[in-house]
Amino acid sequence: MYVILVYDVGEKRVGKMLKLCRQYLNWIQNSVFEGEITSVKLKELLKKAKRLMDMDNDSIIVFKSRDIKWLEKEIIGLEKNPLDTML
Amino acid sequence: MYVILVYDVGEKRVGKMLKLCRQYLNWIQNSVFEGEITSVKLKELLKKAKRLMDMDNDSIIVFKSRDIKWLEKEIIGLEKNPLDTML
Repeated sequence: MYVILVYDVGEKRVGKMLKLCRQYLNWIQNSVFEGEITSVKLKELLKKAKRLMDMDNDSIIVFKSRDIKWLEKEIIGLEKNPLDTML
Repeated sequence: MYVILVYDVGEKRVGKMLKLCRQYLNWIQNSVFEGEITSVKLKELLKKAKRLMDMDNDSIIVFKSRDIKWLEKEIIGLEKNPLDTML
């Protein structure tokens, strides 16, 4: 499946969260990641993320699309991290 | 269509961008918005956004899904802005 992951975590935890998410998905901007991932790998990522998070204040939102072709991507302005796999 | 919009703009422009995007979409977290929107309204939003942006340094990414039912949303931790229309 293709996912878009956005996180909103406390300043102290941003570095670790960025490092973790980079192991599974492509960083595209700010606290936003996208990429192809299996449900097993996504579960693994989210389990590790929960260990980093302050569950009362931090937030991760994952948008899942069963197939990359059901998502169209438009970029305005600077493309912060050009992916080689363009949607 | 259903869209997820994320922006990464300079500090001085964040306030205006937030205000603009709020007129068209639902704020959910950080610089992330989602919602149902027509292509005409999306064009209008992006046209106004471009006028606010420094096109060499700022960035907006829009993920478009033809139908909300092709997108599944998972929230971990705090839901910053609970939408009444849950995916």
